[in-house]
Amino acid sequence: MSLTIGVDVGGTKVAAGVVDERGKIVEKVKRATPAARPDDTADVIADVVLELQGRHEVVAVGIGAAGFVDETRSTVLFAPNLAWRDEQVKKRVEERIGRPVVVENDANAAAWAEAKLGAARDQQHAMLITVGTGIGAGIVIDGRLYRGRWGSAGEPGHYRVVPEGRLCGCGNRGCWEQYASGNALVAEARELARRAPSGAVRLLQLGGGTAEGIDGPAVTQAAREGDSGALSCFEIVGSWLGHGLADLAAILDPGCFVIGGGVSEAGEMLLGPARIAYANSLTGRAYRQLAEVRLAEMGPDAGLIGAADLARMPG
Amino acid sequence: MSLTIGVDVGGTKVAAGVVDERGKIVEKVKRATPAARPDDTADVIADVVLELQGRHEVVAVGIGAAGFVDETRSTVLFAPNLAWRDEQVKKRVEERIGRPVVVENDANAAAWAEAKLGAARDQQHAMLITVGTGIGAGIVIDGRLYRGRWGSAGEPGHYRVVPEGRLCGCGNRGCWEQYASGNALVAEARELARRAPSGAVRLLQLGGGTAEGIDGPAVTQAAREGDSGALSCFEIVGSWLGHGLADLAAILDPGCFVIGGGVSEAGEMLLGPARIAYANSLTGRAYRQLAEVRLAEMGPDAGLIGAADLARMPG
Repeated sequence: MSLTIGVDVGGTKVAAGVVDERGKIVEKVKRATPAARPDDTADVIADVVLELQGRHEVVAVGIGAAGFVDETRSTVLFAPNLAWRDEQVKKRVEERIGRPVVVENDANAAAWAEAKLGAARDQQHAMLITVGTGIGAGIVIDGRLYRGRWGSAGEPGHYRVVPEGRLCGCGNRGCWEQYASGNALVAEARELARRAPSGAVRLLQLGGGTAEGIDGPAVTQAAREGDSGALSCFEIVGSWLGHGLADLAAILDPGCFVIGGGVSEAGEMLLGPARIAYANSLTGRAYRQLAEVRLAEMGPDAGLIGAADLARMPG
Repeated sequence: MSLTIGVDVGGTKVAAGVVDERGKIVEKVKRATPAARPDDTADVIADVVLELQGRHEVVAVGIGAAGFVDETRSTVLFAPNLAWRDEQVKKRVEERIGRPVVVENDANAAAWAEAKLGAARDQQHAMLITVGTGIGAGIVIDGRLYRGRWGSAGEPGHYRVVPEGRLCGCGNRGCWEQYASGNALVAEARELARRAPSGAVRLLQLGGGTAEGIDGPAVTQAAREGDSGALSCFEIVGSWLGHGLADLAAILDPGCFVIGGGVSEAGEMLLGPARIAYANSLTGRAYRQLAEVRLAEMGPDAGLIGAADLARMPG
């Protein structure tokens, strides 16, 4: 059985794994990301791949990175959390490792893992939404990853849900990810703690006494304990998530939605309100099938596994 | 060269044409639509097809209708302007005409005509937006019409652009077609005439003296004459159109957008403001290609021609 390497390049760490044809990780290593200097990041990727190649017979390498990747799967056009601007990642890494390399958007890679091996494996058309700090997404059509004309498809995190809404890191206002992401969850909890602290006693406790101390894991923990303030934050964010799914279903009519990413570990606390808002706001809902909203199955290594599998596929 | 028939079923009339393999209409006839009774509408379609079959050797028939069509291209699930609810149009018409029939959403059929023969013929991934009374759309991916899992893809007219916004015929609030359609254009002009009549002198003149008398052709005519009130209506509606294109590009990254439908006959008065809003609001615009926003080329028969061509294609 042939092996490939999948690399998940994040803002703080590079994770690389040797993966077999069934998506099983044979060995995995991690390094810190030197995000400030683009050359260093490519070098760290090459180093970690060479290390794994020393111990395994590997045929190809797939790299997943948060950012816009061109349609030839070679160049990272822009990566908000890395220093890459028009960076020829494929060429740079291939020169050092002597194996074919493909570069993918990280959410596309995770979507591919869910479509091939995970929660959407029974569907020809599916959409994966990765709810983390922001929102990433991948679109699978006819059983293949859809990248768009220039490789930039699948960025619904930046479609506008509120005119003149919250400022987004992309420079626009009102983007979906400002309302339905981990950042939005924390923002809701902090606002609750500031404006209605009597409803945020437990949240403030977990945040060390200040609104600014409240983070994502604190909101999830309080909600798991049944804290009504924390649960209301999940309801607000989950509803925005579900409204967005209804918009995406109006446009794409996928066979299912798969919700992954760190915030999805909250499970039904997020998905429950999302399903309700989705079912109540889908256009033509009385006359059509409702796509299921499913939890991702592949876990935090989805991006790595998906990138490794995509390295096997031409074009 | 083999011939097919394309039928365009609208709320007021049924248009049917015999079309050759190059998309040329050999003969075309029209009938009034008896919209209130579903059986009658199917009978009128069959009558007009039989009439054309009497004069031409026809191999298949494609029917385009405004509404949700199932993924097997057989049943109209719901047609807002017709009486069809779960209507087996394919079966009903096939029984009377003895030729294979396919049913398509009308905007899908028009999109296909533009993709194969019109403004998007150089693109593998394209999106057609039909701006008429409402907004219809069709998505072409990898050179094929994309219908979604249950045939309902391509309804961005009903994604939400304003939370708690204007009430839509679909029952939801804030749908794109309430802001970027012919209805929206007329609503803007009437509101101008009611609230600021000194800026709507020409519009009121064309409307016979009342705000309610102003219709779409009146707004277009006044704008063509250079009337600033009418032009401002196009600017508002065109900007909403362009904002929506930016949202769709974030999700689908098509190679081009094609704008068709009755309102698109206003040309640059609509497309100019749309292009500006699109270019100014596309996420990541500094780091990516901007898909062209093109005017449709196939004219009002696009749906008929597209339906006729789709009748040739299996699945």
